[in-house]
Amino acid sequence: LSHRPIITLTTDFGTNDHFVGVMKGVILDIVPEAEIVDICHSVQAYDVLDGALTISQAYSYFPNRTVHVVVVDPGVGTARRPILASSDKYHFVAPDNGVLSLVYARENRMHVRHITAQHYFLQPVSNTFHGRDIFSPVAAYLAKEVDSLKFGEELEEYVRFSAPKPKAVDANRIRAVVLKVDRFGNLITNITPQDVPTLFGEGAKSFKIAVGNREITELRSAYAEGAPGEVIAILGSMGFLEIAANRGAAAQLTGASKGSEVSIILGDAAAAGKGA
Amino acid sequence: LSHRPIITLTTDFGTNDHFVGVMKGVILDIVPEAEIVDICHSVQAYDVLDGALTISQAYSYFPNRTVHVVVVDPGVGTARRPILASSDKYHFVAPDNGVLSLVYARENRMHVRHITAQHYFLQPVSNTFHGRDIFSPVAAYLAKEVDSLKFGEELEEYVRFSAPKPKAVDANRIRAVVLKVDRFGNLITNITPQDVPTLFGEGAKSFKIAVGNREITELRSAYAEGAPGEVIAILGSMGFLEIAANRGAAAQLTGASKGSEVSIILGDAAAAGKGA
Amino acid sequence: LSHRPIITLTTDFGTNDHFVGVMKGVILDIVPEAEIVDICHSVQAYDVLDGALTISQAYSYFPNRTVHVVVVDPGVGTARRPILASSDKYHFVAPDNGVLSLVYARENRMHVRHITAQHYFLQPVSNTFHGRDIFSPVAAYLAKEVDSLKFGEELEEYVRFSAPKPKAVDANRIRAVVLKVDRFGNLITNITPQDVPTLFGEGAKSFKIAVGNREITELRSAYAEGAPGEVIAILGSMGFLEIAANRGAAAQLTGASKGSEVSIILGDAAAAGKGA
Repeated sequence: LSHRPIITLTTDFGTNDHFVGVMKGVILDIVPEAEIVDICHSVQAYDVLDGALTISQAYSYFPNRTVHVVVVDPGVGTARRPILASSDKYHFVAPDNGVLSLVYARENRMHVRHITAQHYFLQPVSNTFHGRDIFSPVAAYLAKEVDSLKFGEELEEYVRFSAPKPKAVDANRIRAVVLKVDRFGNLITNITPQDVPTLFGEGAKSFKIAVGNREITELRSAYAEGAPGEVIAILGSMGFLEIAANRGAAAQLTGASKGSEVSIILGDAAAAGKGA
Repeated sequence: LSHRPIITLTTDFGTNDHFVGVMKGVILDIVPEAEIVDICHSVQAYDVLDGALTISQAYSYFPNRTVHVVVVDPGVGTARRPILASSDKYHFVAPDNGVLSLVYARENRMHVRHITAQHYFLQPVSNTFHGRDIFSPVAAYLAKEVDSLKFGEELEEYVRFSAPKPKAVDANRIRAVVLKVDRFGNLITNITPQDVPTLFGEGAKSFKIAVGNREITELRSAYAEGAPGEVIAILGSMGFLEIAANRGAAAQLTGASKGSEVSIILGDAAAAGKGA
Repeated sequence: LSHRPIITLTTDFGTNDHFVGVMKGVILDIVPEAEIVDICHSVQAYDVLDGALTISQAYSYFPNRTVHVVVVDPGVGTARRPILASSDKYHFVAPDNGVLSLVYARENRMHVRHITAQHYFLQPVSNTFHGRDIFSPVAAYLAKEVDSLKFGEELEEYVRFSAPKPKAVDANRIRAVVLKVDRFGNLITNITPQDVPTLFGEGAKSFKIAVGNREITELRSAYAEGAPGEVIAILGSMGFLEIAANRGAAAQLTGASKGSEVSIILGDAAAAGKGA
């Protein structure tokens, strides 16, 4: 091979069973020189949006020609298609259920193929573990530089969805949502600087963010700027507004969790609200 | 070396401590070019059968000459022996407590040796962490192609047990057990198509499976064939009958867990039971 | 490169998010031939002492020239400095918050540098994820054999603390503490043979150890020497006295946990205590 092949794995398989180890065995049996990297195996079970969010946060840091395998696959064994999506830099191997939606949103010129070349599969193919029988061997052959054209025909249509976006309720009110809670109890919202520019930067208006049982009126720039027990807002490393706490868990302090509503009131309305 | 050495790790050490990292350090210090693959570190603590099940599900997917290290070792520091079991394709390094039993059941012509060559150990050898002091360095030297003969004498007798098998209660009744609950809450039973052929395939008789507080009368072929909240039976990727639910946790829905009884009634008795 | 570059990761990032996968992507993009080894990602969140303990237990087993990355970093985004600490054998990349204290205590002749060479950073540098933006790329360039001198000026002063030591209350009484609870529920105390030599070895005096709701009067040499439900003391693989149980969790049996007090009474006072 002309370079060291790198394959990443993102699944909802957890690490309590043999599933991930089996996938690695299948890959190494085909391409023993591969470097296999776990991105995350704790995607919420069956949660395609959570998987989409995870791979979209990680894939772009890897070297050119990395093969990313993404298996969150509640429809395994049904008519849902296995796909190979290729951009200029990367290959993605996944079920066609939208788990690559946030990759499609960031990468131009994706070619998406229906994987049908069964001679690359591990036989017999089960109805319950395509991570082992289809996605891993296909990734391994891609890492061995088998041409993507050989895996199947290009698709015009494939499943994609949009991540939930903040919604303007009126001129000064925005309704957003907690996309996920991270390991530290930070609440990752779906608010980006593009969505609500007036929250961020130099000309930022005054605002009030309500989440769970707390209200926040200021943006901080580091977790450590929070006082003990204080709930703060910060532009996090994922590119989203986070609700956080210094050495504490905002999820616990606010009572909010994944899916909780986040309300933003901008400008004078927020200031008025403060006085109430 | 003539090939890339691959070493797998299966333990009950968990991933909350430094234990697994230390084993990897010991291995890489001896054979820096090794690829170390985690199969699973969440074997139930001290549970030799759970360890046996885990390695038996995963080992055969790996390339020829892979060295599999299996450490579930409640007897560490006692007279239980460290062993090296070798088949035509693989080496297994483990304590002699039966954790390789399900490998012995699948692999013909295993040679099992008592590891006594202390010059391959990390000195001084502790009484509490042979994963670090014995199993890891022995695996590393095997990966470096030290001949298995050099580690100790072959054993005629070594510890092996049988996995619990389904038992016929009478001509139409079978009593089985839940071997484990996987990450998705699927109940993995000990029922295989060899054990109860009449459950599977074209000529399958009617049946009734009772587990926890539920009864199941049909076999499905994909998880997604279940209705919301329905508990289904399926031949799973491990080769066992699984009790499962579509996007749900059968363990929770049935109230059953590891060790729970699974009762099967075959044929007319099942049909009669349905009417009752 | 003259050898296979090895980089280890020790963090409090957990494995439920994309954080660790992102760090690996950043590293491999710079040095694709690196072998990246997870030591532990379950350091207690924000707990610098727990991180110090974890890396101090593992680093010395790795080959010469391993680069150890340690990120437990509650002060990320503040004035706390990123540092590179180098011994004869290893490099350590970490925040300057004391997380390397127990490494400093074991390694002579450490050179500690303030990492200031921003051209080795991933730009733009965030205020919340220096594991991605600073520590990973610096580790990768070190693994590529960039000279440590190039990362910044050597520091005379840097943050270090001492691990809590057992304290003599009087001639026969010592007060110690539970440093951590491991995966098996073993209570790792801060008592070493150097601290309390009379507990260990041939000339050991009689003693009584009180922890939680239990008292222990004998040292055992293997976990399996404990009777069912018995709580025992043992010199563990970490070099500390452990309170343990045979196939059981001492934490549960004693009611003690991280930070719990451990009292030792030596000699006649212990014997007298036994009679009471």
